[in-house]
Amino acid sequence: MSVDAVRFLNDLKELRSFGAAGSGNGVVRPAYSDADVAARGWLAERMQDAGLRVEMDAMGNLFGLADETSILLGSHSDSQPEGGWLDGALGVIAALEVARVSQWPVSVVSFQDEEGRFGVTTGSAVWSGHLSQDHADELKDHDGIRLSEARQAVASMVTGPINPKQFQGFIELHIEQGPTLDQSGEQIGAVTDIVGIRDMKVTFEGQQNHAGTTPMHLRRDAFQALATFNQTLNERLRNVVTPQTVWTLGHVSLHPNASSIVPGKAVFSMQWRDADAGRLGRMEKIIRETAEEIAAARGMVVGFGQMLGLEPVAMDTTLRQAVETAAETVTPGKWRQMPSGALHDATNVARLMPVAMVFVPSIGGISHAFEEDTHEADLVVGVEVLAQAVVNLG
Amino acid sequence: MSVDAVRFLNDLKELRSFGAAGSGNGVVRPAYSDADVAARGWLAERMQDAGLRVEMDAMGNLFGLADETSILLGSHSDSQPEGGWLDGALGVIAALEVARVSQWPVSVVSFQDEEGRFGVTTGSAVWSGHLSQDHADELKDHDGIRLSEARQAVASMVTGPINPKQFQGFIELHIEQGPTLDQSGEQIGAVTDIVGIRDMKVTFEGQQNHAGTTPMHLRRDAFQALATFNQTLNERLRNVVTPQTVWTLGHVSLHPNASSIVPGKAVFSMQWRDADAGRLGRMEKIIRETAEEIAAARGMVVGFGQMLGLEPVAMDTTLRQAVETAAETVTPGKWRQMPSGALHDATNVARLMPVAMVFVPSIGGISHAFEEDTHEADLVVGVEVLAQAVVNLG
Repeated sequence: MSVDAVRFLNDLKELRSFGAAGSGNGVVRPAYSDADVAARGWLAERMQDAGLRVEMDAMGNLFGLADETSILLGSHSDSQPEGGWLDGALGVIAALEVARVSQWPVSVVSFQDEEGRFGVTTGSAVWSGHLSQDHADELKDHDGIRLSEARQAVASMVTGPINPKQFQGFIELHIEQGPTLDQSGEQIGAVTDIVGIRDMKVTFEGQQNHAGTTPMHLRRDAFQALATFNQTLNERLRNVVTPQTVWTLGHVSLHPNASSIVPGKAVFSMQWRDADAGRLGRMEKIIRETAEEIAAARGMVVGFGQMLGLEPVAMDTTLRQAVETAAETVTPGKWRQMPSGALHDATNVARLMPVAMVFVPSIGGISHAFEEDTHEADLVVGVEVLAQAVVNLG
Repeated sequence: MSVDAVRFLNDLKELRSFGAAGSGNGVVRPAYSDADVAARGWLAERMQDAGLRVEMDAMGNLFGLADETSILLGSHSDSQPEGGWLDGALGVIAALEVARVSQWPVSVVSFQDEEGRFGVTTGSAVWSGHLSQDHADELKDHDGIRLSEARQAVASMVTGPINPKQFQGFIELHIEQGPTLDQSGEQIGAVTDIVGIRDMKVTFEGQQNHAGTTPMHLRRDAFQALATFNQTLNERLRNVVTPQTVWTLGHVSLHPNASSIVPGKAVFSMQWRDADAGRLGRMEKIIRETAEEIAAARGMVVGFGQMLGLEPVAMDTTLRQAVETAAETVTPGKWRQMPSGALHDATNVARLMPVAMVFVPSIGGISHAFEEDTHEADLVVGVEVLAQAVVNLG
């Protein structure tokens, strides 16, 4: 089979017109907004034209179903409040194009609220049973609007629950939300895992004091504890991590945060991600031990907040093999295996069936911004790899 | 001569009753408040009883003048919005007691607004000519009240300008606003210098990015730059500083300060203090060079804000000698030379005449808080050293 690159790119650009930001390629198409609902209406027509049976569940997840047991392709068509035109949309339109040309049964999905107006990947979380509809309905957006109210905007399109048993597996094509492929000059990332995440607040409490009259050796300076913790942690983690592991101190709050006062308290966020749950645990041990050591050596108190986390999800071996073989066929030598450091609907869908993911490069690694973009040649390679992966599975 | 310890302590306690906070020993006696004006009225009477001629300048600096050329003793009687009972008050009441018993001419001063309701040591700054009255009058407090309005509260007491030429020198007794004497068990600090201060904002600008998808080696993380800068700076300053030098990063602001985002920007305060202007300059060079090096190595931009500063003031050799000899006489072996890391009226007065300072211990090093206190025995040693210093100069 052969995809129609021009039709595919035109569809992608037409979807962009729903909520077009008027600023470059950007879109403003949050879940359940007028632009999102209109886009779902347009997608439903495209699915029907492709010979698929259109169904929508109560969350607004939109499916174009093949008549028989099929492979499910897709992603999401909602956007960040200020989003790129490809994040989610690419995977949906590529799925539509593959469904049109495939000799094997292919179904298409656009999940709802992947971008988290009401939570995190809310639409696929409810479909997968990770989150109950009742629980989800209580969630509120930043304006205090409940999900139960917001989803009335798609009520007229709802047909009922969609049974996951009709799908053999799920493949999601997505723009890489990072710079790896762009910097390496490769066209395809065959995802190995969606990494797990751990996140907790850490607090050092020392002694607030006068920055002029408190000698250095008598200080219990919470910022100094934080800086030393950071440097010691970086050294110690090197023995444990892989090149794909990441860790971040993104939030820091000193008290009282004044130039003439030795800070008595530092509260900061400690976040780390890896594809291996065991490694996440080993990192946690090092983080806690290092913080406790630094605090004890300086006569300080260390506190650890609630530990938040999501488990890593490994891609299915068979689907991944189909993707990798397809990548080597379509763009020989110009693809790589890589983990996904960002969350995707595939994490939820993995509870129901085998999943795999395919990445295309993001120019400059830009994500969640109007400037997000991918060269058209790479977009076309992306849809071709997706189509070839279906062939390889067939 | 011999001071009357009971009378001295009683006066000190009576002054505390003006603005007594009802919380331990604390006082609420900001410049020009009702409590401050009442305290100045009470002080004026005590000065008169001591045989001094009472005068007040337009700022509200209150003088009790000897008839002939004299040594000036004193400090300030205004307080922080939530102040200790000794900060300033001790030096004024001790001066009053010494004036009563001294065979040599002694004048007494209580400067106004040392605690900076309108600025920094505003009363002595205007008296010393460091700040013009017109300029000072435009200053506003946190409630938007102008100094020109506020000082109307003392207008009825104003007699006119006080000529500094009648004073041979100035000695200020003050509670140490730090833990050095308390921790060493010594009773007196003979101040060598009031340290100079340098303060500037520094900014590292890197690249804000996704904390999941940006590999560690591609990050330009502003917090990491800050932490590395701090550790490198600490190492490098060790070759330049004395045990009295202090430096502080008290304020840190990350952008966007979110746990899932690699911080693109860090703005922080860099403050350092030392008694030697040359050393302050060498430290500045190291600070700037280190920040530039770290930024260059990480592909970042470093920015330096406006450099704020006050020059160090060395105490006068003769006055200092008189204080040190007095300390050795009154409390042999239980005193030390030390710099003042905090600012005092003496910094301004040094523009007009030779100055020296004497410290007594602060229990636990507490300052600018209701809990501030000093053992009575140490208060008495303080006034005795002040009296003996006058004898030594006589």
